[in-house]
Amino acid sequence: MHMNKKTPPKTMSDEHNSHHAELRRARRDAMQGGKDKRYPRHPNVARDNTDKLYLYGLHTVRQALANPNRKKLRLYATKNGVQRLEFDLIDAPDIEVLGTFPKELDKMVGSDAVHQGMILEVEPIPTKELSDLKECDLLLVLDQVTDPHNVGAIMRSAVALGAGAIITTSRYSPVESGVLAKSASGASDLLDHIEVKNLSDALETLHENGFYTIGLDSEEAIPFENIKPQPKIALVLGAEGKGLRERTRETCNQLAKLEMPGEIKSLNVSNAAALALYISRQKIIK
Amino acid sequence: MHMNKKTPPKTMSDEHNSHHAELRRARRDAMQGGKDKRYPRHPNVARDNTDKLYLYGLHTVRQALANPNRKKLRLYATKNGVQRLEFDLIDAPDIEVLGTFPKELDKMVGSDAVHQGMILEVEPIPTKELSDLKECDLLLVLDQVTDPHNVGAIMRSAVALGAGAIITTSRYSPVESGVLAKSASGASDLLDHIEVKNLSDALETLHENGFYTIGLDSEEAIPFENIKPQPKIALVLGAEGKGLRERTRETCNQLAKLEMPGEIKSLNVSNAAALALYISRQKIIK
Repeated sequence: MHMNKKTPPKTMSDEHNSHHAELRRARRDAMQGGKDKRYPRHPNVARDNTDKLYLYGLHTVRQALANPNRKKLRLYATKNGVQRLEFDLIDAPDIEVLGTFPKELDKMVGSDAVHQGMILEVEPIPTKELSDLKECDLLLVLDQVTDPHNVGAIMRSAVALGAGAIITTSRYSPVESGVLAKSASGASDLLDHIEVKNLSDALETLHENGFYTIGLDSEEAIPFENIKPQPKIALVLGAEGKGLRERTRETCNQLAKLEMPGEIKSLNVSNAAALALYISRQKIIK
Repeated sequence: MHMNKKTPPKTMSDEHNSHHAELRRARRDAMQGGKDKRYPRHPNVARDNTDKLYLYGLHTVRQALANPNRKKLRLYATKNGVQRLEFDLIDAPDIEVLGTFPKELDKMVGSDAVHQGMILEVEPIPTKELSDLKECDLLLVLDQVTDPHNVGAIMRSAVALGAGAIITTSRYSPVESGVLAKSASGASDLLDHIEVKNLSDALETLHENGFYTIGLDSEEAIPFENIKPQPKIALVLGAEGKGLRERTRETCNQLAKLEMPGEIKSLNVSNAAALALYISRQKIIK
């Protein structure tokens, strides 16, 4: 997963603030600490494929260590961190291990980060192309969802509920960061991330490969429960507030909505993703 | 919702850092800006029932304005913010309205906060007691879940999926904050928050009131789908990593798990809440 090459607009009028502020916020969240610095003090955010990145927390570090496709550089760990990890470092002779203290780790990733006594310096995993897609029956497609907490939670649910890959556009790709990886709880090392230039073209390719594409939407949509069983499903989600783009809506095989009996008619995007993945899983013909 | 009266421990060993760090982080998140200051610069966090609180963002402000039980003090809004709000301020003669600029609002709640041109200064809503519980068939009980992003998303899903109230312990109660309210997207003004001293006693009272209590757990649990239809369900969720406390597990009528076909066997707590609420809703006998 690499960085969004397009920097978000620097100024914007109040009118457009909902969407752009979300992008800005996502970018800042990714930077950790809320400051949109050009060069962040800590390598928590991968800026391109040659950049370094700090992963932290037990599940995240353990999955990264176990991932043969992840280039690992250095492990900074406390004595307790190493014990907790239960990973035989003899199996990973390429990794430099540096013993340290909790306070030093706090300094590296910020004292808010629940590092659990371990930080692994890694290179970001290169994103894949649609032609790399492995055999699977459930996929997640994100139409400009970039908030790292949400994307992390979505990746975690995608792995847990058996999705084979996550597809995003290269222009509005979620940035791999310590925050995203921690929210993903190891899922970013378990799920293929495919970047495509044009989402509508990608959806057409998915159709040719037997996927039934379902766009999560509220207007002109049928209840999600009414979807007929399918051999393969690709679930398409838009950003909160903004929803799916027009071209995306037009290209999906079906628009479906999650029915809410209560006074609020929409869910947090990661909550919506979890529910839609769960229902989709039940619709797939074994 | 008022503040957790018990301050979290100030120092802790590395061994216990997973849970306590989460509490600390929740507290810091609530404070906004990641600094655990004794007196935060901005009133984003309610410290007790007489404290002030800044709510921001369209849905959150609109729901607070529409809530007769919410004491509202001042509205700071840009010209566009007022237009977007579409709220006739003549209906709210008690509220002082102060016109301002986006940058001033940024200063009040931090430039990361998506305020959408409006900040409403309010008093926190007093929490209720179990005897205040209104007639409903679905409830959510949180066993020490305090992270404001997660609790906010959970409250939003609870309202959307028709839960009648959220029950927490007074000792580990989520702190009402700008972050929580924004994540809740107005849900904190739509959902009763009940605080109880002892969770096991509260579960027993729920049993007497016809609620079937289901604890979300992974050990010794049946698949959630196997739960038999019930007239009333109270869903009990523990904090991530820590899960339900022993007494809570023992008191629930049934422990149930969400089955995950994938390599990750647990979801983000708000994602798990959304799924469990959705399945519970289907189990309730109309």
